[in-house]
Amino acid sequence: MKSKDKPLAEGILFTDMYQLTMAHLYFRMGLHEKTVQFDHFFRSYPDYGAHKAGYCINAGLEWLIDWMQEVRFGDREIEFLRQQTGQTGKRLFGDDFLAWLRQHGHFGRLTVRAIPEGRVVHPNVPLTTVQGPLAMAQILETPLLNMLNYPTLIATRAARISHAGRGQLMLEFGMRRGQERGVNAGARAALIGGADFSSNTGISGVLGYEPKGTHAHSLVQLFMALGEGELAAFRAYADVYPDDCLLLVDTINTLESGLPNALTVFDELRQKGHQPIGIRLDSGDLAYLAVQSAKILNAAGYPNVNIVLSNQLDELAILQILAQIRDESARSGIDARDVMKRLVYGVGTSLITSAGDGALDGVYKLVAVQEQDGWLPAIKISENPVKTPNPGHKNVWRVYDERGLATADLLTLDDEEPTEMNPLLLQHPVDARINRALVDTAVSHIEPLLTTVWDEGKLVYGLPTLAQIRQQRRADIDRLDSGVRRLINPHIYHVSLSPKLWQLKQTLIANFKKK
Amino acid sequence: MKSKDKPLAEGILFTDMYQLTMAHLYFRMGLHEKTVQFDHFFRSYPDYGAHKAGYCINAGLEWLIDWMQEVRFGDREIEFLRQQTGQTGKRLFGDDFLAWLRQHGHFGRLTVRAIPEGRVVHPNVPLTTVQGPLAMAQILETPLLNMLNYPTLIATRAARISHAGRGQLMLEFGMRRGQERGVNAGARAALIGGADFSSNTGISGVLGYEPKGTHAHSLVQLFMALGEGELAAFRAYADVYPDDCLLLVDTINTLESGLPNALTVFDELRQKGHQPIGIRLDSGDLAYLAVQSAKILNAAGYPNVNIVLSNQLDELAILQILAQIRDESARSGIDARDVMKRLVYGVGTSLITSAGDGALDGVYKLVAVQEQDGWLPAIKISENPVKTPNPGHKNVWRVYDERGLATADLLTLDDEEPTEMNPLLLQHPVDARINRALVDTAVSHIEPLLTTVWDEGKLVYGLPTLAQIRQQRRADIDRLDSGVRRLINPHIYHVSLSPKLWQLKQTLIANFKKK
Repeated sequence: MKSKDKPLAEGILFTDMYQLTMAHLYFRMGLHEKTVQFDHFFRSYPDYGAHKAGYCINAGLEWLIDWMQEVRFGDREIEFLRQQTGQTGKRLFGDDFLAWLRQHGHFGRLTVRAIPEGRVVHPNVPLTTVQGPLAMAQILETPLLNMLNYPTLIATRAARISHAGRGQLMLEFGMRRGQERGVNAGARAALIGGADFSSNTGISGVLGYEPKGTHAHSLVQLFMALGEGELAAFRAYADVYPDDCLLLVDTINTLESGLPNALTVFDELRQKGHQPIGIRLDSGDLAYLAVQSAKILNAAGYPNVNIVLSNQLDELAILQILAQIRDESARSGIDARDVMKRLVYGVGTSLITSAGDGALDGVYKLVAVQEQDGWLPAIKISENPVKTPNPGHKNVWRVYDERGLATADLLTLDDEEPTEMNPLLLQHPVDARINRALVDTAVSHIEPLLTTVWDEGKLVYGLPTLAQIRQQRRADIDRLDSGVRRLINPHIYHVSLSPKLWQLKQTLIANFKKK
Repeated sequence: MKSKDKPLAEGILFTDMYQLTMAHLYFRMGLHEKTVQFDHFFRSYPDYGAHKAGYCINAGLEWLIDWMQEVRFGDREIEFLRQQTGQTGKRLFGDDFLAWLRQHGHFGRLTVRAIPEGRVVHPNVPLTTVQGPLAMAQILETPLLNMLNYPTLIATRAARISHAGRGQLMLEFGMRRGQERGVNAGARAALIGGADFSSNTGISGVLGYEPKGTHAHSLVQLFMALGEGELAAFRAYADVYPDDCLLLVDTINTLESGLPNALTVFDELRQKGHQPIGIRLDSGDLAYLAVQSAKILNAAGYPNVNIVLSNQLDELAILQILAQIRDESARSGIDARDVMKRLVYGVGTSLITSAGDGALDGVYKLVAVQEQDGWLPAIKISENPVKTPNPGHKNVWRVYDERGLATADLLTLDDEEPTEMNPLLLQHPVDARINRALVDTAVSHIEPLLTTVWDEGKLVYGLPTLAQIRQQRRADIDRLDSGVRRLINPHIYHVSLSPKLWQLKQTLIANFKKK
């Protein structure tokens, strides 16, 4: 796309057409300024087929807010809408609506509450609530979902992969495999969720992270085409980067060529007073090669150089590699911990595309309409009761048990104060027969999760740094039960309703059925 | 992301860090200006698990060229690189290299040949070749793969979904589920491959397409929250869009509420001289509901209104729906063709994320180095012979059989002229024993596929319009054997080498093994 076209493609028309046809209808009915509330939430954890997430990591808010601050309907957008015609060639949008949009077509009258980035989040919990005039709250639906669904999907995957890798350094390498410039949002989300660095240079620069990368097979291959060999390529690398020498050793044959050549170069470096950094393995049996390489590196006096693994890694591949390393190490007479402590993971396609489940099912549903006497709850009835959203103007709380671990998220009506309830009643969102009563000694802390971020167009929230967001993610994951953290067949975390919210939902459903 | 950060994130540093560390090394070795050739190709068709592609649709070139024309190393990029330090705190990049980059860090000395967008393409065939100074050709690797892999993946998926839908109108609806702004590239690719329109407003505007959309469940739900009902919502819609009335009928109950209410409104429209457009079904048993809706619409005198289907559609879901429509129609006393001719497909997640296989494995490999006496072929040996790229400066041809159908793609050395070969020998790329000899009467046409697009920085190619690209795609798919087009278990299309190229590859492999 040419730069001149980006304002139209990435500005306020970065939304689905039906948001605009509906906004026009609301204008025509005099409803466009009516104050409403939409809730954003996802319905189910990512399910990768062979395994499934038991929690998600919330991400994307800052860039959504950046976008909301910058976009509005300008002359070019209005002119484009003016040109839209229907089946009979007549214009779709009236001049009065377009004049209103030109003047009021921005997000400056909306109020956004949200759960901060980096927090552990669960299905059917409002992650973001949007209040304000109906027309603009409606137009925001698509960009909000676009800018929150994908980052949350990727932050979640990064947390899982980091967990599988037992906290060893993890690098995001997926830029060439993602969806065009979406990879920048993906890299940021990966850093939020658990990646430590990215190979993506530009976005690392914007985020204040060092981009990571050394060399590709093509370096070795070029030297070979010029009649030289792998050793010459490695020497050239060591010459330019004597204190950052990390060599990709599998272009020809890892154990017969790459590793011996790397050791030659490492010895030369050491003689000149430099410390080599490591090797990278990008093909073959990574566990076997890691164990053999560690053994050879140890014998050569390099017990601390890193072994970077890459090539189709994801959480299951890493689990398998670590299990195999435990077995192979014993056979090879090396302590498995001695191999594992030097591993670094470079993760590409699986992370940036969330392979196996490439989309989060986040939705944005009308839950309340403001009338003169307060908020009127709205409900969308679905034949599947699980898909019937929780109505009304609500609050979200996290309940920690006596161990300090999160035991449930609780949705209440806005005027409820669960810290004052004893016992605290947690009602299953669908099944009336399932509920829990927690006496106060079983509860160590009840924490509200939603924060007002954007108050009628004003940013009223101190956006945390990426380091703070990462710290929040670590703290939240530490407060999960290990069964919920588990990579395969995780425990189902409880998301409950207060009895009052449960009752409201049942009343609305019953009223609806009567009609 | 804030607008002020986009130039850094989306300019020439939109690349992997290792491209820059390698470029710096090449500079240090005096190799940075050496003329080389990289080939871009993919190794395997997308494999969605339950089904697999038998061809791909090439896409993405125009936006890559747009990007190459606009970016270069400016002060901000150089300053960022100047700040990069290694393990010991010393700078990674030398001032002399940065000065060179500041002056020569653009793509104006590269030459790009490519297979045009919209063409059917196959594995291991060079889709794009890049010739020019090593350093800049290396830096281009990541953005080229990023901007070509994803569009080709999505154009391919769109062609499959359109094929399953038997050419009925197909709409791209996936904006909320893709990877942030990558959805714009996805929408364009979907249009190239087979979608007819997109719901994405901004990008439709840029591409000169009408964005499509009517209304969401939230319209009906809002009216219900205000004490009115579905009928009032439909009437409001018909009132504002009397000639474009397409109603989503499944918010409450399709057959008991949505469709009767739609018919009431359609009758009112007809009395006022307007033609209703259709209904949309977004949940439930779409085949059953489509048949029942068609029957009811026919009985009410609306034999031509569209039935738009959406909700988790992909090619297999559509195959299943059409099979079921054939069965149900017979039972319901309606001609299945009468149902099928009015179907329109709205496809979201599966299309924009290519669910089941969310990344194309496109790669970019060094294949030749220019020396004083001509091109020196380069080869990367892999233990898997299928992964050993075809070396050298090559040409690509498509061979059409006596029926005018494509029977093979043929890779030759650049100086070979297959139109003058009789018989034409097609050698399997890996297995020496497999080859075909085509006498000239068995060949109707041999077509060169690569076009010079970008000649040392000058665009020398008349970029086709999207309509022309779509026409090319239709023509190419029509010239595929039906076995290759098949959605499940497609025939394997032949990609062959000329005997001369085969011999070169074998010689290089043998020489390599000798060393």
